[in-house]
Formats: sequence, C-alpha cells, structure tokens
Amino acid sequence: MQEVRTAPSSFAILGAGSFGTALAVTLAQQGHHVSLIGRDEEMMAELNVKRENTKYLPGVHLHPNIVCTNDLRQCLQMDYVLLSVPTQSMRAACANLRDIAPASFYKKASIVHVAKGLERGTGKRVSEVILETLPSLAANRLAVLSGPSHAEELAQNVPTTLVATSASKSYAEEIQGVFMSDTLRVYTNPDLIGVELGGALKNIIALGAGISDGLGFGDNARAALITRGLVEIARLGVALGASTATFGGLTGIGDLIVTCTSRLSRNWNAGYLLGQGMPITEVLPKIGMVVEGATTTKVAVEKAKSLAVSMPIAEAISNILDGACSPKEAVLGLMSRKKTHEVEERFVEATIGWAAQ
Amino acid sequence: MQEVRTAPSSFAILGAGSFGTALAVTLAQQGHHVSLIGRDEEMMAELNVKRENTKYLPGVHLHPNIVCTNDLRQCLQMDYVLLSVPTQSMRAACANLRDIAPASFYKKASIVHVAKGLERGTGKRVSEVILETLPSLAANRLAVLSGPSHAEELAQNVPTTLVATSASKSYAEEIQGVFMSDTLRVYTNPDLIGVELGGALKNIIALGAGISDGLGFGDNARAALITRGLVEIARLGVALGASTATFGGLTGIGDLIVTCTSRLSRNWNAGYLLGQGMPITEVLPKIGMVVEGATTTKVAVEKAKSLAVSMPIAEAISNILDGACSPKEAVLGLMSRKKTHEVEERFVEATIGWAAQ
Repeated sequence: MQEVRTAPSSFAILGAGSFGTALAVTLAQQGHHVSLIGRDEEMMAELNVKRENTKYLPGVHLHPNIVCTNDLRQCLQMDYVLLSVPTQSMRAACANLRDIAPASFYKKASIVHVAKGLERGTGKRVSEVILETLPSLAANRLAVLSGPSHAEELAQNVPTTLVATSASKSYAEEIQGVFMSDTLRVYTNPDLIGVELGGALKNIIALGAGISDGLGFGDNARAALITRGLVEIARLGVALGASTATFGGLTGIGDLIVTCTSRLSRNWNAGYLLGQGMPITEVLPKIGMVVEGATTTKVAVEKAKSLAVSMPIAEAISNILDGACSPKEAVLGLMSRKKTHEVEERFVEATIGWAAQ
Repeated sequence: MQEVRTAPSSFAILGAGSFGTALAVTLAQQGHHVSLIGRDEEMMAELNVKRENTKYLPGVHLHPNIVCTNDLRQCLQMDYVLLSVPTQSMRAACANLRDIAPASFYKKASIVHVAKGLERGTGKRVSEVILETLPSLAANRLAVLSGPSHAEELAQNVPTTLVATSASKSYAEEIQGVFMSDTLRVYTNPDLIGVELGGALKNIIALGAGISDGLGFGDNARAALITRGLVEIARLGVALGASTATFGGLTGIGDLIVTCTSRLSRNWNAGYLLGQGMPITEVLPKIGMVVEGATTTKVAVEKAKSLAVSMPIAEAISNILDGACSPKEAVLGLMSRKKTHEVEERFVEATIGWAAQ
C-alpha cells in the first residue's frame, strides 16, 4: 500500500560524522546520489576507498551511490544540501558555503539541517543561524529533519521515525517524500520553532537523567525527571513561540526517551559521570566529543530568567555544571520543593478541574 | 525548607502484593500505623512473624508499624482504606467490604485506590467500579494515587513521584500531605479520568514496546512506538473526558517510560515473548501474573471503535493478541501507512501552522 516514491535526486551532505554518514547510506539505498563532504581531504579520500566510516559509523558499508569528498563545491551541483555539522560549527560552515556560492545557487537552493542545539553566545536556533549567514536563501527552501534516531540504527534499517518541518508546507512534504522508506517513516509538523527547540533542549534533560542514574537512583526517579523536565522545556518553548503539542511528539518526548534511556548518548554519559562524582573539568575531556547539553543548559537558563519562566531542573543542572552544588544536594533540593499541582492552571481545560472548589 | 507534615494516621491496606506492601513500608516509615490485609490467613500470619514479603517484595524489611492480617474488619477501624488489589478483583473486594460495613463507616470513610486497569466486560474505570459497589461512599472521599513507581524502588526509598487525584481538591491535597516524604514527592491533579486512563492505557503501549524489543528492533523504534502510542491513548482519553495535559504528565508519559524501559514490567515481558514468536496461549501462563495490558487492549479498541477514535497501534497489538497477524507484519503495516502530519489539526494552536498555505 506504499505510495508512489519520489524520483531519485542528488544530495550534498555537509558533515561526515555519524549522523551525516547514516543519512548518506539511507538516501543512497533509496536510489539517490550522494556526495558526502568532510573537511579532512585525507580522511575523505580514505573513506572513498575503504567504503566504511570506521571513526564515526563503524560496521556500516558505504553504498556505491555515495561519493566521499572534501570538495565543498559539490553543494552547488546537487538538488539538495543537507547540513549535518555540529551546532557550534554551523555558522562557519554556512559562511564557507556563502563564499563560494554564485547568485544562481540561491534560485534553486534547497537546504535541510539536522543539528540539535542552540548557538553559544547568541542563543539562536540553527535555522536562524543559517538564514542569517545565507541571507539570499529563501526561508521556504529550508527544512529541519529531527526525531528519535541513533545514527547506527538508522544506517542499519532498523525502523525509525523522523519529523520534517519548514516555513513552507510544500517543502516539508517534499522532504518527507524524499526520505520515506519501508523502515524510515517521516511525519511533517508545521511547528519549526518547537521542532528545533525540542531537539536542543532535550539534551538538558539527558544530562539530568544521566546524573540521576550516576547517583544510583532508579527507574522511578529517571521517569519523573524526564517527565517534569519535559514540562519545563515545553514551558520555555511555548514562551519562545513553539506549540505545546510538538513537545509531546517525536522531536520532543520521542527524542528525549531515546537520549535518556540509551548509553549511546554523549549527554547522558556526561551526566552519568557527574552523578558518580567526577568534576565537570574532567568529564568533558573524557567524553571527548561535543556535549551540546552543557552549552544548551546555560543558554536555556538565561533565556528562562529573562522570560520569567520557571525551570527548577535546568537550574539545578546548571548549578551542578558550575560546581555550585553536588548532584545529591541538587536532587534532594528538587524533591523537597513545596507541594504543588502537577499541571499549571493554564494547561488544564476549563471543563476539567477544581476551579469551582 | 520542608513544610509541616501531617500528623500520624492509620491505614488499612487491602492487598498484600508488591505495591500494597511497598506502600505499607513507606507509610510506616513516616510514622503512620498500617494494617496490611491479605486474603490468605496462613500467609499473613507468616508475614507478621518473618517481617518480609518474600513472594512479592523480597529483601524489604516490614517496619514495626505494620501489622499483617487477613481480617477485613481492620478497614472499619482505620482513618484511611487503601485499595491495592488488581483491577479485575476490585469489584469483589469492594463487595466484601460492603458486606461488613455498618452505615456509620460511610460517614468517615476515606478511600484511596492504586489499581491501573479497566474492568473486563464493563470497560469501567476503577473509581467507577468502587462507587458503584459502595454506593453509600461519598465521591469526595475517594482518591486515586498513580504514577511512575516500581514497588521495589518505592520501598527502598529511591526518589519517586506520584500523583494524587480526587473529585475533591481538598481530599487530593490531604492524600498528598499524608504520603509526601523526603524521597516521595506527590503532586495533585484535578483530572481523575485522565489519571485513571493513563495508568490503564499505558499497558497497551508497554506490550507494544516489548513486541518491538522482542523483534530485535532498536531504541529508535521503541521511542517512536511510545510517542505515537501516547498520542493514541491521549486521543482516546480526551474522547472519554480526560485532559490532554495529563497524558503528558507523570501518570501518562512518566508511567509509560517506566513501564516500557524496564524489564521489571509484566506487560513489557509479555510483549517481548510475543515479539520473539511465542504464541499468546503460551505467553500468559509463562508470565504467571496478571497481564492487565491484554485485557486493556481489547477494551480500548472496542471503546475507540464506538467513538470513531483512530488507534492504529492498539489495533495492531489487538490483532497480534488474537493471532490475526504476526508481530513483524503488524510493525511493517504501521510503518507503511500513508504519509501524514505529526500533530492533528485540532491540537495545533491557530497561530502556529500552515493553515494559510
């Protein structure tokens, strides 16, 4: 009962990390042509020969439809440009693209990004950074792809779901059509702000879940932390223009579940080491990769303060990251806050409640 | 900064299973007097001497404030009656209580139940069954306590959260006050229907998560199933009078996370065996305890049909339980449904969306 598939297209994927490589494999298997672009000339030449990204996605064969290169100009030739670089590198990557792009590029440019974070310093969402750095790009040709997706599983065709969003409904649906397969189901969602914020803010809660597990707490505590954490990040998200419903979806709770219950998550791992008592100055070098959650926590707590949004869990994690209190003190502080209702008045429909009592 | 605690009270706990015993330990540690009531005279006498429920809660010492008994009349003496029997036994347990209760009992009766399920045959919520069987009981002295809580962790003072709900705000807050401790945080929520339905319907999704894991799928698939499953049960819940927000809270997503990510869950285990290819006729005897999810799935699918609510995941699980399709066929059927938006129109605020496009 599958619908007719979109005809093969060509993709330039900027960023040959685990997720970029996994997307390359997925697209190539569906018949699309892919240029996988990394910065390191030697590494990319080696990938092209070895047909395996042993550093970031070991064990996965690179499909013949994939060409590995360090030539950024591939972005100018392909139907779509997929930006799969870390959040904090996105501005520089887009500036490099801008430097080589002729005016004609923007007439047909179709961009998708998959980064989950907020820019350090500015606190901006990734799509804001992209549009700011590529001012000639039409906002209705920029989409975001996000959701609960370990790269390893995506590349191995284990059933996975993603969400495509864009300022333009038709472009979101175009991206949905391009990526859908028997094992990858793509939903569309109009809430671009919510999709981007969900992917970024969930890393705060992943840190927290790791801290709870590192302290030796159990499933009850972790589930409570995830749930109450979701309430917090949704609260901030709504204050920033997102829809509550998005935080209840795949890019919110879905991604949060994957991140908080999997030992593959860098953010969870960083939290786990903190919970076990390792100081933050030792944790970050030990993880050895980007821990987006640490940056995101700082940005979120600042935004929450300026908007008068209550985020007790994020604040507690921020205090732990600063060394201002121990993980155990932070958790006991959260447990002994004054008695409260679960759902804020404004979230409860007028017909359900104790308003009259 | 803890608030003043409620003075010690007395509790009759009906049902000496794992959760009833854990609640007895929690309450006793806080200074309350507890009669833990089981049906089996010999077993209860033995518990009273051995001070450990080796069958249902091994390794946990029964605090001296707990008296173990099979004397149902203890319910008539205590300040609160806590009903901790399985859903399908609740009607009979309440009928037994009714048979011995004098009219004076109802003047001061204060009841809390902790059962998570829907009654077979009638499809009723547990509070409906209780009020129907004890018609003289005032609805504003009946509360529900629910949330993400393995009995083992609760009894060992691992940080845990619960939600108290009741038709009466003041009674819900009274129950909140009685149970709150340094390691047990209780929230109130006015949405009694949503709290009861969340606790019951999550077992459908726990079965599904087990099936996905049994098939050898990964974190991506399980997170998608939990998230889309939550959308479905919230949809049915709203049609039955619940608030969407409750499904995003501790008794919804929180309890779902604990149930779906823990190997302690009977429902997850039953699903896991089904996913591995064991027929349902062998699964149920092997689990050896109540698998509420199987009953709940049937009841929910019937209710959904009569209310024209779409529940593709619950229907697929129902088909697997009936042997009408294999787990693998069911999952592939779900993945290849036609392309769709993530959030139903009516859940998205008018200000966020593509309505104008």
